[in-house]
Amino acid sequence: MKRIAVFTSGGDAPGMNACIRAVVRSAHYFGLEVYGILKGYDGMIHGNLIEMDDRSVSNIIQRGGTILKSARSEEFRTMEGRKKAYENIKKFGIDGLVGIGGNGTFTGAEVFYNEFQIPCVGAPGTIDNDLYGTDFTIGYDTAVNTALSAIDRIRDTADAHERIFFIEVMGRDTGYIAVRSAIAGGAEMSVMPESKNSIKEVIQKLKHGTSQSKSSHIIIVAEGHEVGRAQSIADKVKKELPELDAKVTTLGHVQRGGAPTAADRVLASRLGLGAVEGLIKGKTNVMAGVINRTLCYTPFKDTITKKKPINKELIRIVEILNGRKYHNIEREIL
Amino acid sequence: MKRIAVFTSGGDAPGMNACIRAVVRSAHYFGLEVYGILKGYDGMIHGNLIEMDDRSVSNIIQRGGTILKSARSEEFRTMEGRKKAYENIKKFGIDGLVGIGGNGTFTGAEVFYNEFQIPCVGAPGTIDNDLYGTDFTIGYDTAVNTALSAIDRIRDTADAHERIFFIEVMGRDTGYIAVRSAIAGGAEMSVMPESKNSIKEVIQKLKHGTSQSKSSHIIIVAEGHEVGRAQSIADKVKKELPELDAKVTTLGHVQRGGAPTAADRVLASRLGLGAVEGLIKGKTNVMAGVINRTLCYTPFKDTITKKKPINKELIRIVEILNGRKYHNIEREIL
Amino acid sequence: MKRIAVFTSGGDAPGMNACIRAVVRSAHYFGLEVYGILKGYDGMIHGNLIEMDDRSVSNIIQRGGTILKSARSEEFRTMEGRKKAYENIKKFGIDGLVGIGGNGTFTGAEVFYNEFQIPCVGAPGTIDNDLYGTDFTIGYDTAVNTALSAIDRIRDTADAHERIFFIEVMGRDTGYIAVRSAIAGGAEMSVMPESKNSIKEVIQKLKHGTSQSKSSHIIIVAEGHEVGRAQSIADKVKKELPELDAKVTTLGHVQRGGAPTAADRVLASRLGLGAVEGLIKGKTNVMAGVINRTLCYTPFKDTITKKKPINKELIRIVEILNGRKYHNIEREIL
Amino acid sequence: MKRIAVFTSGGDAPGMNACIRAVVRSAHYFGLEVYGILKGYDGMIHGNLIEMDDRSVSNIIQRGGTILKSARSEEFRTMEGRKKAYENIKKFGIDGLVGIGGNGTFTGAEVFYNEFQIPCVGAPGTIDNDLYGTDFTIGYDTAVNTALSAIDRIRDTADAHERIFFIEVMGRDTGYIAVRSAIAGGAEMSVMPESKNSIKEVIQKLKHGTSQSKSSHIIIVAEGHEVGRAQSIADKVKKELPELDAKVTTLGHVQRGGAPTAADRVLASRLGLGAVEGLIKGKTNVMAGVINRTLCYTPFKDTITKKKPINKELIRIVEILNGRKYHNIEREIL
Repeated sequence: MKRIAVFTSGGDAPGMNACIRAVVRSAHYFGLEVYGILKGYDGMIHGNLIEMDDRSVSNIIQRGGTILKSARSEEFRTMEGRKKAYENIKKFGIDGLVGIGGNGTFTGAEVFYNEFQIPCVGAPGTIDNDLYGTDFTIGYDTAVNTALSAIDRIRDTADAHERIFFIEVMGRDTGYIAVRSAIAGGAEMSVMPESKNSIKEVIQKLKHGTSQSKSSHIIIVAEGHEVGRAQSIADKVKKELPELDAKVTTLGHVQRGGAPTAADRVLASRLGLGAVEGLIKGKTNVMAGVINRTLCYTPFKDTITKKKPINKELIRIVEILNGRKYHNIEREIL
Repeated sequence: MKRIAVFTSGGDAPGMNACIRAVVRSAHYFGLEVYGILKGYDGMIHGNLIEMDDRSVSNIIQRGGTILKSARSEEFRTMEGRKKAYENIKKFGIDGLVGIGGNGTFTGAEVFYNEFQIPCVGAPGTIDNDLYGTDFTIGYDTAVNTALSAIDRIRDTADAHERIFFIEVMGRDTGYIAVRSAIAGGAEMSVMPESKNSIKEVIQKLKHGTSQSKSSHIIIVAEGHEVGRAQSIADKVKKELPELDAKVTTLGHVQRGGAPTAADRVLASRLGLGAVEGLIKGKTNVMAGVINRTLCYTPFKDTITKKKPINKELIRIVEILNGRKYHNIEREIL
Repeated sequence: MKRIAVFTSGGDAPGMNACIRAVVRSAHYFGLEVYGILKGYDGMIHGNLIEMDDRSVSNIIQRGGTILKSARSEEFRTMEGRKKAYENIKKFGIDGLVGIGGNGTFTGAEVFYNEFQIPCVGAPGTIDNDLYGTDFTIGYDTAVNTALSAIDRIRDTADAHERIFFIEVMGRDTGYIAVRSAIAGGAEMSVMPESKNSIKEVIQKLKHGTSQSKSSHIIIVAEGHEVGRAQSIADKVKKELPELDAKVTTLGHVQRGGAPTAADRVLASRLGLGAVEGLIKGKTNVMAGVINRTLCYTPFKDTITKKKPINKELIRIVEILNGRKYHNIEREIL
Repeated sequence: MKRIAVFTSGGDAPGMNACIRAVVRSAHYFGLEVYGILKGYDGMIHGNLIEMDDRSVSNIIQRGGTILKSARSEEFRTMEGRKKAYENIKKFGIDGLVGIGGNGTFTGAEVFYNEFQIPCVGAPGTIDNDLYGTDFTIGYDTAVNTALSAIDRIRDTADAHERIFFIEVMGRDTGYIAVRSAIAGGAEMSVMPESKNSIKEVIQKLKHGTSQSKSSHIIIVAEGHEVGRAQSIADKVKKELPELDAKVTTLGHVQRGGAPTAADRVLASRLGLGAVEGLIKGKTNVMAGVINRTLCYTPFKDTITKKKPINKELIRIVEILNGRKYHNIEREIL
């Protein structure tokens, strides 16, 4: 292996730049040359590659986003597109790839390897933390802290006015961001796929909680819950409990940006180094991850097909520590 | 004057606690007793007053929200309600009031004075900065910085993906928060009442800007612009320019909370002291403000009826420094 | 078990309040009464206990410091002092204790148990992360992020001026804070006990690094390194390399405060609940910890005597990713 | 005027990049070409200039430091050095200069103009706020907020332990940063040149304050006070009052970095535009400033020689609102 290339793909996440930096610096440390591919698979197809020296990644460890940019590529889903990509990879003399992203990224890399034998090691870069093969993904800790900062602010005004706030956080079809930001924000309830809350339960709890004493309630809603988005849940609650002063905040893309936290920068640095060392050792079609604080590699086919369950203990903590306004509610529902 | 009371009313704003603290400490410094009225005029009507010593305002200068809570009071709009309020004011031996809030607060205080001669000096507490009689209101600087922090985060992801972001900020029917956060956030456009932008202009600029080069655009939308909310503007843009990847973020109540900035704490401290000194000097129905860095008092009737125009220079700065993607567009429109 | 008491002792750490809250809420959830002991063992001796209801811990999850205050108690080191403490514990009817702190706290609790059989479960509250029996201590993640924020700021000015900055961070006799903030801050070097750096090595590296190209260097110094404090190292460097523009920043107690991060709040919540459940299950003289994301209990005698080694992989990351200015230096030293 | 150059000089300040960006974008808006001079006068002497297009200042508005770097130049103090600088200015065809910095910068520019007639308009970039001709300097608001954030953190731990903290802030020979951060941080005392505090007064106040009740005290010390630095004041206090637990924090260069606040970015944008418009209008040897929210130009000879007094009202606010522990102390001293 003499020359590798690194790219980011899919939704961007804070810490991707720290990971790019780690890939570039590690590669140089081990005597490899590094290219950066702009806009993920799209840049591979269009030959959008630039050589990266150590200076090109100076002063980016603290920046959100990705200096290599990210984009979706419909063309890479076609054989024709991938062939163009391969030709560019050959033209630039690339022997191995590091792909930072999620399952979409890894699926593409696996198909590409099967067709053209360009080895790829992945690094998990997504705020959603929904990847099997690593305890945490790059960007997750930052996203949780960003959501938490918003919850802290909203708590100020909720307390001043005795209001109900529904705050929608990201997480695709998981409640990872929801559950940690709910615990840390002291939110009374976390409505998310894994806890299978129904609208009826939300209404019942609020009815009980507000009847006990006037007070504020903060309810975190994971975007992917099948009962609906925060706005729709709030609409249903208001219909049943019209006397409540309910507000909705959808944090949206604010959660994707910002300077990464220390944990995300350390994780990104470790995985960037791990990905390069993986390539050097001849690995391919695996994702570098950290499980129980130990670096490990998991086949793409497992990261793509297996589901990482949420720690049930966390769901329990929300109920015991934050849900006190709703304690004893089960008896009432019966 | 021997005993005064302080209350917060209307929407809460960061720095209200710093102002309450200043009122309490100043009053004690000058030998006055102080009561806090809970939930604004509602607490006045229901006799919800507590005595405040210096300790009761310890360690609150840095907190968002208001320890005295805030609430709307329909009852205070009735003569009957105000009479109850007056009886409580008498019962507690209150000689003067400091009301922290906006024009709703001051209107109530003026009516109350005309009927019952309880003097009141106001302090401008609102994130919207829409009060005549002071250069800045308590909470405005914090709200702008909160909006800015969200814009900075979104810029990261916008740059990574070449997207158009519409970010809606608060400000009632003014563009104060919009214009400063647009300048500071480097937003390409600020859609707000004072600049009278039309949907046609927004679409024309985006069409021009994106045709010149692929890139990200951040557009700040003031909630009170008559062309519609951010979501509705984005919908119209997407209809005309369906190829653009447009996202909407509505910051909402996040802007009301958080630890106040240094500027807001200094302003709140100064105005709290100024309000107490105003009462001692026999002033009533005036709002303490700071104009050109000098403390001054403006009659409620002026703060309520007069409009504080936005500095046109600020609007020009957005166009010159941030709007470069749209330069020369006028010629095209013609 | 019917009534427990909670106290904080030793140096305060962000997240202690979140842990107190978790203890109180968990205890109530399981039907126990809870008292708070003010100022640790000192309050035990002086009968400084207050009953805590759910409201008494509202809105503290986000606050640094400890609402129960902390203090050293020389008196508790005497049999007489501990006897007074026991009498108060009896008087208040306390059946079990939760002590949040470090090894000093746990040593006291163990002696106290051996003499008076009051069971105690500990929770690790210290920014230094130097406790065996848990991967992370409460406050560590926040302290690292606080140090990191300072490093990020100093990097701005270092880059502008091409200077050498020595930044001293806390950590007692370990480099936990140093190594993570060095990786995350992109610091060129981390001088800390575990890496056994000598002054000679620091000077050699700087000589090499600055001879290659003019640039800034940030060097993190762990307070407990035997080669001396940051100021003394800087003095020695300046003596050897007088042409360098070297500045020193000692972060000090800034690292102990601030709103805890999400990770610290989640950990504190989990350990507070775990401590209460431990007491209920009859455990004593153990510290609740989280190892490999699983709650566990470690005897005080192990937390006190065993050393938790730093992950060598982290030290290697600093060298590979950040130390590029010093690569190849070994050859020069020889 | 066809081509101008911009440079930063002296200590860096947050917002300098926002100002550089404003100069570049404004110049282009008005049809001028712009060069950036690296490292201030040093770069002028060594011909270290680069052309700047709009893209070169993209995404820098939020960054601390200065992309043009800053340096001291002894050589520019010599006629020979300035002659070299002039030759480069001629060679690059520069018709006018914008210098961002403080009085050192402006003194250099004035001498240079008198010798070589290259017009220069200045922009006040310094965290110290000690420039006549503008209410606020670029970087001051950010530095105050950075100091405040540290004070807030230290307050947490001070409260937990009942300690005395001496926190040294920057400000050269003025108390601008000290007084605002003291008000906003609720610091009990602000020791700074303008309030002429003596060591005796500090000791007397602490003696009185701690005798009244056990509690924490935070004392802000301006670096330029003639009574000595924070460490030396603390040493003297400890000698007189050995029972106090006194700690010292010197914030140092942390205050110079960080993302600029909204106020600093708006000010920097306005002054960058104002400087370019000044040059176009034929102004020279003046500093653009904002007084009473209005753009104005002040001759360098005034900014250099005249002193901007601190607002006495601010000093009074610290005493009335924060100094309550020391009230009535005068009587005791007598």
